[in-house]
Amino acid sequence: MPKKVDHEQRRRQIAEAVWRIASGRGLEDVTLRQVAAEAGVSTRLVQYYFGSRDALLLGALELLSLDQKQRVEERIPKDASPRLLLREILIGLLPLDEHQRMTLLVQLAYFIRALNDEALAAAFIDPEDQSLENLFIEIMTAARAQGQIADGLDLAREADTLLAVSTGVGPDILVGLKTGDQVIAMIDYHLDRIFLSSE
Amino acid sequence: MPKKVDHEQRRRQIAEAVWRIASGRGLEDVTLRQVAAEAGVSTRLVQYYFGSRDALLLGALELLSLDQKQRVEERIPKDASPRLLLREILIGLLPLDEHQRMTLLVQLAYFIRALNDEALAAAFIDPEDQSLENLFIEIMTAARAQGQIADGLDLAREADTLLAVSTGVGPDILVGLKTGDQVIAMIDYHLDRIFLSSE
Repeated sequence: MPKKVDHEQRRRQIAEAVWRIASGRGLEDVTLRQVAAEAGVSTRLVQYYFGSRDALLLGALELLSLDQKQRVEERIPKDASPRLLLREILIGLLPLDEHQRMTLLVQLAYFIRALNDEALAAAFIDPEDQSLENLFIEIMTAARAQGQIADGLDLAREADTLLAVSTGVGPDILVGLKTGDQVIAMIDYHLDRIFLSSE
Repeated sequence: MPKKVDHEQRRRQIAEAVWRIASGRGLEDVTLRQVAAEAGVSTRLVQYYFGSRDALLLGALELLSLDQKQRVEERIPKDASPRLLLREILIGLLPLDEHQRMTLLVQLAYFIRALNDEALAAAFIDPEDQSLENLFIEIMTAARAQGQIADGLDLAREADTLLAVSTGVGPDILVGLKTGDQVIAMIDYHLDRIFLSSE
């Protein structure tokens, strides 16, 4: 079905134009006309694929969220230890490469609008964080059963902390207040507290 | 000098209109005309007090940063223990009241633009975080000298963690994924790790 593939590629090409504009200049400049120019297509084509500006904003965000999910999943090594598994997911959330940097910027650009727009909020808040939190608790609970976790820890709070460290420093990395190495050292500091072994 | 006071009040009245629009709908709607309407003054008056849209954006952000600094400082209790001091500052950074909520939203609205605008970046990134980090390290170092800190902690990393927890969960509070009580419990969890006494 070459026609179908072509449609998907075209939608992605337009969505990528939205991402570039939103991450570089904010939503302010995401208009049908400017997106069309950035994507190198006509405004009519953008309308054909997405409809209104609202639908374009939503569609581009949905594609980005899907992308990020896949990227984090691809980073997870097979047969990794619980500690390494957590570490890879956490590092995967940091804006250390161009794509993750852009993803965080697009999310920041959309944030306020999503607070007042249920459809955007669903594509956004969509409990990715919650499910990561639960995944982290599961991983650490399994590691505890194997005697790998330090005594006296509240695993739900530790999961929250790991996520807060990873997401809380994102903007600091973007503005250059922290380097990726500094943040990874911070993640390791907490993994050292949580796990009895360094492997 | 009643004239001077009046000028400052007028600037603040206009800045507050910028904050309300930016926190509610993003920078997209912060135009001279919409700000004038929101402030209940003429577009000419906005121009008289701030000049261009760029200067208005900058001036409103500077006033907000000043405000936030004062509010955090006012929260700090006199003769507080090191632990209570940290706790009050950290809670003061959370979007738990209407003003802190608005402050965080305005900062999010400005973020991408500040990455590409040195004047905005200076009003923004202006090393408030860095200085808070250093203040936290100082407070904990003094507490350590008095035997109040648990063994084996890297105080710079702990300072980073406390700040990351506080800033990292801000958006989660705004979207309702976390309550203020949950986040305060998380802050206390870390203060319990760091401080030997609960006072």
